[in-house]
Amino acid sequence: MMIINIDRLMRDLSEYAQYGKDPTGGLTRPSFSEPDYEVREKFISELTNMGLDVHVDGIANIWGTYQGQATKQQPILIGSHLDTVPNGGAFDGALGVLVAKEVIQTLIDHDVALHHPIEIVSFTAEEPNDFNLSTMGSRTYLGKIDRETLEKTTDSTGRKLSDAVKKAGGNVRDMPISQKEFAAFLELHIEQGKRLEKANLPVGIVDNIVGIYRDKITVRGKANHSGTTMMPDRFDALTAASEIALAVEEVLRENDTDAVATVGKFDVHPNAANIIPGKVELIIEIRSSSKEERSRLNTLIGEKYNEIAERRNVKLEVENILDQQECDFDPDIVSTLQRTVHEMDIEAPIFASMAGHDATHIAEITKTAMLFVKSIGGISHSPEEFTTREDIQTAANVMLQAILNIDETLAE
Amino acid sequence: MMIINIDRLMRDLSEYAQYGKDPTGGLTRPSFSEPDYEVREKFISELTNMGLDVHVDGIANIWGTYQGQATKQQPILIGSHLDTVPNGGAFDGALGVLVAKEVIQTLIDHDVALHHPIEIVSFTAEEPNDFNLSTMGSRTYLGKIDRETLEKTTDSTGRKLSDAVKKAGGNVRDMPISQKEFAAFLELHIEQGKRLEKANLPVGIVDNIVGIYRDKITVRGKANHSGTTMMPDRFDALTAASEIALAVEEVLRENDTDAVATVGKFDVHPNAANIIPGKVELIIEIRSSSKEERSRLNTLIGEKYNEIAERRNVKLEVENILDQQECDFDPDIVSTLQRTVHEMDIEAPIFASMAGHDATHIAEITKTAMLFVKSIGGISHSPEEFTTREDIQTAANVMLQAILNIDETLAE
Repeated sequence: MMIINIDRLMRDLSEYAQYGKDPTGGLTRPSFSEPDYEVREKFISELTNMGLDVHVDGIANIWGTYQGQATKQQPILIGSHLDTVPNGGAFDGALGVLVAKEVIQTLIDHDVALHHPIEIVSFTAEEPNDFNLSTMGSRTYLGKIDRETLEKTTDSTGRKLSDAVKKAGGNVRDMPISQKEFAAFLELHIEQGKRLEKANLPVGIVDNIVGIYRDKITVRGKANHSGTTMMPDRFDALTAASEIALAVEEVLRENDTDAVATVGKFDVHPNAANIIPGKVELIIEIRSSSKEERSRLNTLIGEKYNEIAERRNVKLEVENILDQQECDFDPDIVSTLQRTVHEMDIEAPIFASMAGHDATHIAEITKTAMLFVKSIGGISHSPEEFTTREDIQTAANVMLQAILNIDETLAE
Repeated sequence: MMIINIDRLMRDLSEYAQYGKDPTGGLTRPSFSEPDYEVREKFISELTNMGLDVHVDGIANIWGTYQGQATKQQPILIGSHLDTVPNGGAFDGALGVLVAKEVIQTLIDHDVALHHPIEIVSFTAEEPNDFNLSTMGSRTYLGKIDRETLEKTTDSTGRKLSDAVKKAGGNVRDMPISQKEFAAFLELHIEQGKRLEKANLPVGIVDNIVGIYRDKITVRGKANHSGTTMMPDRFDALTAASEIALAVEEVLRENDTDAVATVGKFDVHPNAANIIPGKVELIIEIRSSSKEERSRLNTLIGEKYNEIAERRNVKLEVENILDQQECDFDPDIVSTLQRTVHEMDIEAPIFASMAGHDATHIAEITKTAMLFVKSIGGISHSPEEFTTREDIQTAANVMLQAILNIDETLAE
């Protein structure tokens, strides 16, 4: 069986991790930072040296096509993103891009005859960034972010996104980007969670990306003097909001669910040591692969916070600010992945991705799925982000075999 | 029995409430604002017209002495402050100053022969203000704020305090202010709480100002992705901090105490909807007239938060940031006040002030107490701050009789 070159892949990972390396460890390489421009140059030059047909689109996504002996028009797309969060790690995004490069290099090395061209992509600005447009590259490619928005977007220093994109070889005037037709898209990514670690398995097959539901809750009590207002006379928005945060946790604990719910944003007003809080604004986020489950949990949480508000005599305003539907990946690609791991005698669970990815968007235009590889400690967006060489090797070989199988299956 | 002129007093209150009046109701007259400079001019001119010996000290406190037929050197001091918080009310501070003025005017009108001179004072910047120095006038008078501090202090716009003080007739180079000797100090103030309203009584005698104890608690959990981190794998600093805020409330409810405790400041990090909070910084404040009670409650609260931290596997750092001792007022002045209300057939409770006042500081140099008058709804620092004409009349007459009694008692 053909296998990838793990030494070459690990060397690549280590080389790419020099771009944006923080003095204290960790990697700071947001899209359009100096290290990002440098790593793009390296990446484009390497793809070109591999003999790929390289192209940078309007939003500066980097594409490279390996034509090989393809008889079909539509390429099988693989890849991920090269940008990181500030002080992030070397694996989130880069691993998916570099495994894709290694898979193509292996196909080239063995001069494998495939039905489909294989295309690699590195998407621009997948991570949350200072331009406030995450999954920027894939969403813009899909036409979900328009030219006007891109033209008027600046970062916190006033730098124009259009200038930043131009420097990376793109041009926001080239909108909408003309979409190609793909046969399939397969993205490899670190899990960023602990499910694989807990199961002691190297890879997982992702058949769904969870939907995300967010309500903003405004709790209105009565701001008052912390000295002169006796305890029974208080309408404390903070203690009410505290009960709500705990109720969210309690509902998730009481219900047997693989959903998660979080209060992550929580702002207290007026926020002074000597004033009883009069107002708290908080955001409740619920993620689940099932719309019904999100809705059921939201109802249970709502019952609790309404009871809290009534008992404490505070007012609530509830505003839905996000209702992003789950994304079901393509059953054919998922079953091809299942068959692939089975053939390789690798046990791999099928589960949902709890985080969003570029694949969510690309799934709208082609048959898509993802492969997750184990994150040590479930840690990501941190210098401690880590995946072992052994798991990387397994995952890259699964990707290689999966591409061969998908190529075969889709050609039938 | 001699009584004050309630019509004149109410007219004064209404006139002074024009200075800094907000278009939407409420009063914005912080020290060294334009309306403050204007009201100072009016006040000084009225004191002068009353025949008082008026003096503005280095920090721009305004003093006026009614010598009358006094045989003693040391004046009995009465007064409060004329500054307000932004969008505050017409009674907090101004009522104490204007009742003092009315009392002196009444003494003048009746040409009463007293043993002591009566001196009125309006202290500078009692309220929290943009120079970050509350009870500025009384503390500076006591030498608790030094010349260097005053000279380097600016507000948020960069305006120098020294310039602001100069415009009001003071001079921060005249430090320390040479202190006079007083026979006593009596400050009338609105209660800013609901105890008198609940007891349906117009006035209360204040024999103590509570001590204030503040601990800053830093709760350290682990910031993590709100999607990929399953519920059992979380170390959520916010839910831990929420339990702590509720524990403070619970300890106060479980203990029969007239103390109060508050979590008013509460900062969540990184404070994003999609990140499990990794850190919360909060301040627990305990106010009680008894040091032992503050300490006892703090111990009980500490037991709870340590249990919470252990159970939730989060780390706590506890830092004491304020340990202001209670101030016991003078027993002689308090008992003279008791005798006064008894003579007038007025029922008045004796209690602690839950808020700080200029009297806290002046108590260090002379026999001091305070008289509280009922606040409707306990509301202060708000346009809704209100005290009835009837209660003001009662309070002002108590002040008048109290001054006569104190004058007599201290002359013995």
